[in-house]
Amino acid sequence: MNKMADQAEFKTPTVTTGSLPASTKDYTNPATAPDIRVPRRVIALHPTANEPDVPVYDTSGPYSDPSVTIDVEKGLERHRTAWVLERGGVEEYEGRDVRPEDNGGAKGKHLAREFPVKNNPLRGLPDHKVTQYEFAKAGIITKEMIYVAERENIGRQSMLDGAQDRVDAGESFGAEMPEFVTPEFVRAEIARGRAIIPSNINHAELEPQIIGRNFLVKINANIGNSAVTSSVEEEVDKMVWATRWGADNVMDLSTGRNIHNTREWIIRNSPVPIGTVPIYQALEKVNGTAEDLTWEIYRDTLIEQAEQGVDYFTIHAGVRLAYIHLTANRVCGIVSRGGSIMAKWMLSHHKESFLYTHFDEICDIMRKYDVSFSLGDGLRPGAIADANDAAQFAELETLGELTQIAWQKGCQVMIEGPGHVPMHKIKVNMEKQLRECGEAPFYTLGPLTTDIAPGYDHITSGIGAAMIGWFGTSMLCYVTPKEHLGLPDRDDVKVGVITYKLAAHAADLAKGHPAAQMRDDALSRARFEFRWEDQFNLSLDPETAKDYHDQTLPKDAHKTAHFCSMCGPKFCSMKITQDVRDYADGLSDNEKTALGLSAKKGMDEMSEKFKGLGGKIYLSTDGSTRETID
Amino acid sequence: MNKMADQAEFKTPTVTTGSLPASTKDYTNPATAPDIRVPRRVIALHPTANEPDVPVYDTSGPYSDPSVTIDVEKGLERHRTAWVLERGGVEEYEGRDVRPEDNGGAKGKHLAREFPVKNNPLRGLPDHKVTQYEFAKAGIITKEMIYVAERENIGRQSMLDGAQDRVDAGESFGAEMPEFVTPEFVRAEIARGRAIIPSNINHAELEPQIIGRNFLVKINANIGNSAVTSSVEEEVDKMVWATRWGADNVMDLSTGRNIHNTREWIIRNSPVPIGTVPIYQALEKVNGTAEDLTWEIYRDTLIEQAEQGVDYFTIHAGVRLAYIHLTANRVCGIVSRGGSIMAKWMLSHHKESFLYTHFDEICDIMRKYDVSFSLGDGLRPGAIADANDAAQFAELETLGELTQIAWQKGCQVMIEGPGHVPMHKIKVNMEKQLRECGEAPFYTLGPLTTDIAPGYDHITSGIGAAMIGWFGTSMLCYVTPKEHLGLPDRDDVKVGVITYKLAAHAADLAKGHPAAQMRDDALSRARFEFRWEDQFNLSLDPETAKDYHDQTLPKDAHKTAHFCSMCGPKFCSMKITQDVRDYADGLSDNEKTALGLSAKKGMDEMSEKFKGLGGKIYLSTDGSTRETID
Repeated sequence: MNKMADQAEFKTPTVTTGSLPASTKDYTNPATAPDIRVPRRVIALHPTANEPDVPVYDTSGPYSDPSVTIDVEKGLERHRTAWVLERGGVEEYEGRDVRPEDNGGAKGKHLAREFPVKNNPLRGLPDHKVTQYEFAKAGIITKEMIYVAERENIGRQSMLDGAQDRVDAGESFGAEMPEFVTPEFVRAEIARGRAIIPSNINHAELEPQIIGRNFLVKINANIGNSAVTSSVEEEVDKMVWATRWGADNVMDLSTGRNIHNTREWIIRNSPVPIGTVPIYQALEKVNGTAEDLTWEIYRDTLIEQAEQGVDYFTIHAGVRLAYIHLTANRVCGIVSRGGSIMAKWMLSHHKESFLYTHFDEICDIMRKYDVSFSLGDGLRPGAIADANDAAQFAELETLGELTQIAWQKGCQVMIEGPGHVPMHKIKVNMEKQLRECGEAPFYTLGPLTTDIAPGYDHITSGIGAAMIGWFGTSMLCYVTPKEHLGLPDRDDVKVGVITYKLAAHAADLAKGHPAAQMRDDALSRARFEFRWEDQFNLSLDPETAKDYHDQTLPKDAHKTAHFCSMCGPKFCSMKITQDVRDYADGLSDNEKTALGLSAKKGMDEMSEKFKGLGGKIYLSTDGSTRETID
Repeated sequence: MNKMADQAEFKTPTVTTGSLPASTKDYTNPATAPDIRVPRRVIALHPTANEPDVPVYDTSGPYSDPSVTIDVEKGLERHRTAWVLERGGVEEYEGRDVRPEDNGGAKGKHLAREFPVKNNPLRGLPDHKVTQYEFAKAGIITKEMIYVAERENIGRQSMLDGAQDRVDAGESFGAEMPEFVTPEFVRAEIARGRAIIPSNINHAELEPQIIGRNFLVKINANIGNSAVTSSVEEEVDKMVWATRWGADNVMDLSTGRNIHNTREWIIRNSPVPIGTVPIYQALEKVNGTAEDLTWEIYRDTLIEQAEQGVDYFTIHAGVRLAYIHLTANRVCGIVSRGGSIMAKWMLSHHKESFLYTHFDEICDIMRKYDVSFSLGDGLRPGAIADANDAAQFAELETLGELTQIAWQKGCQVMIEGPGHVPMHKIKVNMEKQLRECGEAPFYTLGPLTTDIAPGYDHITSGIGAAMIGWFGTSMLCYVTPKEHLGLPDRDDVKVGVITYKLAAHAADLAKGHPAAQMRDDALSRARFEFRWEDQFNLSLDPETAKDYHDQTLPKDAHKTAHFCSMCGPKFCSMKITQDVRDYADGLSDNEKTALGLSAKKGMDEMSEKFKGLGGKIYLSTDGSTRETID
């Protein structure tokens, strides 16, 4: 796996395709835009289940659709170009030429092959609406909005009974999840700045999704090569792999050579939004010397990446000169790469950050392509000791200020959050973010709730992620087991994605999402009824579930066994419970009544009666009363 | 690994011994009882660290002490017998004979070898104090209390500076953690029923520890063979393995044959308290037919296990006849094995549970050996859909009632809790338990915060465990990746233990434990200073941390490299931060002042000044004021 980038041989990336176990990919057509096809995955249950198949949200794109022929050399179908063109206000133009420095000066056999197909980029025209935010503000519902509304409703139709009860029973901390998501609801949320649809007009391959706290909690997977390891092939494979397991978004954090070409391969083949941190590439263009960075180089990099179709940029414009000294006594200083690069630049030049001073121009560029802001937390804490300190919160306040500017300029905005935060300091992060940043979506890395478990930081952070997702964070950036230790490989990517999917789902459940529990219930019924295959197929990672089961009970017969290896047949509580139910079913009505099992009526009376009975038996054996003992 | 029990060849169990990386085992002697040796592990840091070595709590017993010769055939040193005898009130007697049914009727080559050494059991005399609870109530401080006080203080001495600040900054939800733990504090907590020291007078090999919400959060690891798989050797190995990685307690949940002999091997070699669920063995004695269970068989099993030295019994006495019908409409019915066995018995006999009707006698037996109660939650929810329902809470109320009786009888008590609970329903579990059960320690399984991730239930439950530990749960029962799927092997046990250690530690941090953050800080400083080996050695699982690092950067030289494979040298934020600090150090005082870096004084003024500067620069580039845009 760990081929060095400079030994790359320009093979066609191989990616994982095909259906997930027992799953069919299908598409639904929204009533208001029947030409749109919104994907979902339907998990078929065993015929004995006697209940409907289970539809689930599907991030995997055409790769899991057996009817689509995948050709990574051509990229995915560019269906979204038509949507963008039909609403107008954009122009096609000859894009910026690729320059040697865009690929870190890689030459000859070290230079990764260019993506074979070239498309001219689109950009917004002055005085025309381009961004989802601008359309939403103007009261216009875009196809992207219709698409995400349909997508958010997967499962809601079949769960309408009792939906409001589930919403009411949840604790949403001020989020307002509707029973049903309409395109108008989506529009209104975007217009309020409370949600974004990252969707660069040049990412025509995109299947849009929405990030906001009144929608399903989303997750982001980071991939990307580094100067030390990995190749274009691996990164394309990782992107497809991550979305197969549920990544709603992917960030390409490449920092080595070949950044431009790697990114092109990724975007052209990506059904999910791609985010980047443009300062990484800008730094490569000046050979890694932070002091040599200039606004011009950075600006050029923004345009380069916007033309390629990057959907959101992390921009650390909140790291101001005045805040650097606030990190001086930290245990871990500045742990954000972008933050530390800018800190070094500012100190060297004794100047305010050009990201801050040129923020308006950055907005103008990003608006033109509808690149969403992911306002970076360059001063996030990198240790429990540094959580919620003056540096972190000073930056957050500045991010609030910049959010207002970006909105004013017509841009979509989300806000990045920490980091390393002990559990008792998590909630205030969410509350302050909502307050300072006008409810713009929060996008957090974990947070990690302790520093002492490298190798398990997907878990230390999964805890914090589930909690902050519950409190209102809209997107959770995954952490893999390799965090702090090495570059994640394919297996790590999968573990990170599954961990964050379960954390996001736990958050949806706790918020009172009206349909989230459908999958839990279906899986638990399968568990109770010993439908082992259904249990595997309904799980986030069917392969691992099945593999773990088969390690102790490998035979096919065991898949229908009414027990498992943990307890064996005699001790299986589920089996005994079923026996209890069967036993009760076999009783006469009188017997049932006597045992308090006449189910529907008078249960509470029966309960009281049996309490009495139990009490009496108890009294007869020890001669004392429970009450006097109490 | 998966040898069938009936093919066992009676080998001597092999166990893992030796130091952990860079660690020395040492012992401290409490001032009030200098003959007692309390173990701890001291992690040595690299000489360049220029800070003290880090002492940590050590559950691994003599196995990690190179000066101790381990002989599994003899068992560990029985040092505690002297403590018990010197306070008197006990008698040695000829114990109950082992009968064929104690080992499930296993014969010939199917019968696991008896433990080679036989000790006569001790039991309490009438009208004498036996249990820690009785001594505590009488104002007497036992050696066990002195021992656990010393043990809880590890690290506290070196963290005394600012200890009260950390306690105050935490959110303990009513827990009252002292800056320093005295034996008298321990005694008072036990006397109030708020803490227990599981310590059967016949478990002479025990290194005592305390379970209560004003102490470090503890974890329990379940092991045990089943009818389907595993052997004595494996279970002894798993017990030692689990404690090596941090299990404070171990439950032997064996359900196959050879239960008696397996347990004897485990207890004689265990430095940590061993818990069991006696109904499992009782059921084996009646060939798995729940209806055939009798009070007499159960009573005999309690005595059998108490004589062996089991430290706590899970007793599902709260599952009453009147509650069974409350589970009728559940998605997963009754998932507790003990609960379902008793439900079946009650329905078959149309009688109240004998665990409930004979509760007083159970108390009398357990008091005599100081076996602690772990009052089982036989009606705990086994699915998100079933959380916090009438059945669960009815049982919890009964557990509260039984707690009072057990205390009255002189017994130590903790209360078991769920199970499967979505995040928003966790806190009420803790609150209700504290209220109903008079603050007796809560001991929860997870809870799992979603049902949809079999294969990852150590994580779905680690989330719930960290949260409920923070809210006040005293002990967290681990869940392994194999939960719901198969019997955990050695690797699963380790992953389960590490996951729960990190969850317990996250809870300690959030509660405001005065010294917990010591290890986080030491590790984070090592991280910042690129002391890779220290980073590995300070982590919960040094082997995995090092292995993950070495997968991408295997060479020894990389252990001292000031970067890692994630970012490579140019992008390392820690390196850049250090550059920033070095740069600042190289400036003249005037330059520093100009940059706001004169650290100690006037930082806030500087910050304000630079905000002005930044603002001005910003204004000069776009001509507008930030304020009007806001």
